[in-house]
Amino acid sequence: MLVLITYDVSTSSKEGRRRLSQVAKKCLDYGQRVQNSVFECMVDATQFRRLKYELEELIDETTDSLRFYNLGDNYKTKVQHVGAKPSYDISGPLIL
Amino acid sequence: MLVLITYDVSTSSKEGRRRLSQVAKKCLDYGQRVQNSVFECMVDATQFRRLKYELEELIDETTDSLRFYNLGDNYKTKVQHVGAKPSYDISGPLIL
Repeated sequence: MLVLITYDVSTSSKEGRRRLSQVAKKCLDYGQRVQNSVFECMVDATQFRRLKYELEELIDETTDSLRFYNLGDNYKTKVQHVGAKPSYDISGPLIL
Repeated sequence: MLVLITYDVSTSSKEGRRRLSQVAKKCLDYGQRVQNSVFECMVDATQFRRLKYELEELIDETTDSLRFYNLGDNYKTKVQHVGAKPSYDISGPLIL
């Protein structure tokens, strides 16, 4: 299933900037960045639970926020991109 | 149906910063901000087409990007929020 992850991490402190890069790195472990703080991850239910747990451990819940949108398996017709840097199709052929 | 809108607008120029605020204002006409550049809009198909057109008119497609995620009518089980500033339920009762 495709899970969209969006986040706001407070970068007013050095600690916040560190959290921001850790959150981005963690999302990259599971999927691709499609916009600045927007990631698309193809995960099963178990992977999703683990990813969510790992991200919750990284953020400061008083200042930062995470949003998860489950688009299911039938996601291609649900996503539209306009403008710069369209993402590659995460489940498409990997051309080397 | 619930449509999620995420965007990246280049703010390296004054013109870009102006586009950014226009895009945010336009999204607010149709829905609510849930994170910095993430909006949730309850729209029908016609409203969605108009919103998409109006946003496309505002951005510079060479530097900015818009992403639209159609979560349909049955969206409540698909969205999870963790951390600061949870959004109000867009279709819930308006308590005055």
